[in-house]
Amino acid sequence: APSRPHETRPVKLAVIPGDGIGPEVVAEAEKVLDAVTAGSGIRFDKSRFSLGASRFLETGETLTETDLEAIKEQDAILLGAVGGVPGDPRLKNANIERGLLLKLRFELDHYVNLRPSKLYPGVPGPLAEPGDIDFVVVREGTEGPYVGNGGSIRTGTPHEVANETSVNTAFGVERVVRYAFDLAERRSKRVTLVHKTNVLVHAGGIWKRLVDDVAREHPDVAVDYVHVDAATIYLVTNPGRFDVIVTDNLFGDILTDLAGAVTGGIGLAASGNINPDGTFPSMFEPVHGSAPDIAGQQKADPTAAILSVALLLDHLGLTDEARRVTTAVEDDLAGRGGAPRTTAQIGDAIVARLQA
Amino acid sequence: APSRPHETRPVKLAVIPGDGIGPEVVAEAEKVLDAVTAGSGIRFDKSRFSLGASRFLETGETLTETDLEAIKEQDAILLGAVGGVPGDPRLKNANIERGLLLKLRFELDHYVNLRPSKLYPGVPGPLAEPGDIDFVVVREGTEGPYVGNGGSIRTGTPHEVANETSVNTAFGVERVVRYAFDLAERRSKRVTLVHKTNVLVHAGGIWKRLVDDVAREHPDVAVDYVHVDAATIYLVTNPGRFDVIVTDNLFGDILTDLAGAVTGGIGLAASGNINPDGTFPSMFEPVHGSAPDIAGQQKADPTAAILSVALLLDHLGLTDEARRVTTAVEDDLAGRGGAPRTTAQIGDAIVARLQA
Ligand SMILES: CC(C)[C@H](C(=O)O)[C@@H](O)C(=O)O
Ligand SMILES: CC(C)[C@H](C(=O)O)[C@@H](O)C(=O)O
Repeated sequence: APSRPHETRPVKLAVIPGDGIGPEVVAEAEKVLDAVTAGSGIRFDKSRFSLGASRFLETGETLTETDLEAIKEQDAILLGAVGGVPGDPRLKNANIERGLLLKLRFELDHYVNLRPSKLYPGVPGPLAEPGDIDFVVVREGTEGPYVGNGGSIRTGTPHEVANETSVNTAFGVERVVRYAFDLAERRSKRVTLVHKTNVLVHAGGIWKRLVDDVAREHPDVAVDYVHVDAATIYLVTNPGRFDVIVTDNLFGDILTDLAGAVTGGIGLAASGNINPDGTFPSMFEPVHGSAPDIAGQQKADPTAAILSVALLLDHLGLTDEARRVTTAVEDDLAGRGGAPRTTAQIGDAIVARLQA
Repeated sequence: APSRPHETRPVKLAVIPGDGIGPEVVAEAEKVLDAVTAGSGIRFDKSRFSLGASRFLETGETLTETDLEAIKEQDAILLGAVGGVPGDPRLKNANIERGLLLKLRFELDHYVNLRPSKLYPGVPGPLAEPGDIDFVVVREGTEGPYVGNGGSIRTGTPHEVANETSVNTAFGVERVVRYAFDLAERRSKRVTLVHKTNVLVHAGGIWKRLVDDVAREHPDVAVDYVHVDAATIYLVTNPGRFDVIVTDNLFGDILTDLAGAVTGGIGLAASGNINPDGTFPSMFEPVHGSAPDIAGQQKADPTAAILSVALLLDHLGLTDEARRVTTAVEDDLAGRGGAPRTTAQIGDAIVARLQA
């Protein structure tokens, strides 16, 4: 169970607005956080961290030891989005993805990357008959093809060989599988393992075995297995078949972008990078990126960031507050017409619903 | 350029009907092949190979050296689908995927896995506004995470570590990238590389570098890059943006199932496992599997197998015949109502159009 720091003291919250649309959506997320806790006695002690491409361009730093240590002292992290303009030559060595975002996930042992996918009433999506979509992807966050265990020889020559190794441990797989089953117990008691066991026999084998093992402790949870390629088919033809999906880091990355798309776009998709043990702060962020092309124009939808605040509140044990944020977002989504609103207008509308 | 054996002698064709619905769809594909070449002087000298789960259940063999050598002597291969009932305990050691299907692709150096994706007029699909979908995925077929370069230690214990290595060579990547650019020259001169370069920096790096290198030789071809996760979003929100996608073995597997789904289902998706050098026979097969649940019931759609015949004809240089098959299929698809037809009825209808 996550600790409940707010019961005894202000919650230490790291805020990383980041790059592009990050600061804009985080500003709205913070408004919502302030509004939902106003008058409750729950206080947040916020520390702002300037991290991302803009920090790199200013200082040449991606993630310093000092910043990392300071972040580790926090109770939770709210992150907007990081990443500069694709192809910017000045960012060649910035390594924002591996050196900052993935570094935080790995250093803070965010072994559960929790990505709910829900098609809210009133939200238009690309599917003609979407049906009832409401599932959660439990994506492993610290192993698999993401470990950075690769290299190349004769790089840049016609004889180059470039390898990349997916590392999967019983320790790492079992803990995330357990989390998925516990979550399924609180939902509709269905878990689907997604992998590619017929081709990746070793990486797939350990996942299959541990799901089977943990399943035996949950006789009331129905378990099935779907290959990752087939899973993408189901996501567009029958997404309602899923409740809790558990999968590895790379497959989870792919499936959650697709899931975001079928539920109305990643402008709505929230995520939590969770360290369930509470050893390190968990980090909440929209699934979308920094979208530099629309940055600073108040065009970004802050909903994903705001729903990430709901996940953050839930993680802190503030389930009532989390539910209030989700309901306010749901109401806002249901009432959306075609008229475009600015980032701030959407945030303000959600705040107004919270205060109503 | 592929050889044109039909100009001097009968074309040696290996037919592998396989398991489940494989024999049913291959029967229709053969009808179409016979019909389109009837009276043309083009003859096929067919050899049938009993391979797949049923062969394993009968003899304990997956792919014998003798069969493999005999297959290598052929000019081309038509394959239905292989694979038994999922979870059948008798197939535990059959290893149909790695030991038969992938073994053929690797042994016959099928480095291009060609998967066209087209939404034909009249075909219902899951997208509300699909737009104009007509692209080809050039999936690498002999490298990447599919090489089988994995292993585990302390297997089955709480200390298991299971690794799986993606191997990418300049030799292997460059040749498939060249194929993609040559194909783009004959289409709308657009190539999209799909990978995950921001995370899989070494595997992604070699792909990026070689695409950039080959692109310099094709100044008239527009090149862009999309991360695999974002590519799945585009496939459901703007599939028309793609023309030729080039990608690795695993990403190609995932994208082509999704692409099949958005273009009306993998019952329509054809593929060619191509050895462009002509050193070994190329193999043509529907993207779908053996679907044991509907096998023997004349419920399967043979269209994917029939379109695979069109790819086969094209590969042999029989472009006129290929076009006639495609047109007959297109006409059949456009005229389909809601009334269900048997596998044979669909095949017969397409044959009738060819003869009309
Ligand atoms: C930016 C990238 C490293 C990241 C990932 O691949 O995990 C992103 O796609 C995500 O899903 O959060
Ligand atoms: C059956 C399996 C090994 C195969 C693959 O992964 O390549 C299939 O999914 C395909 O796409 O042809």
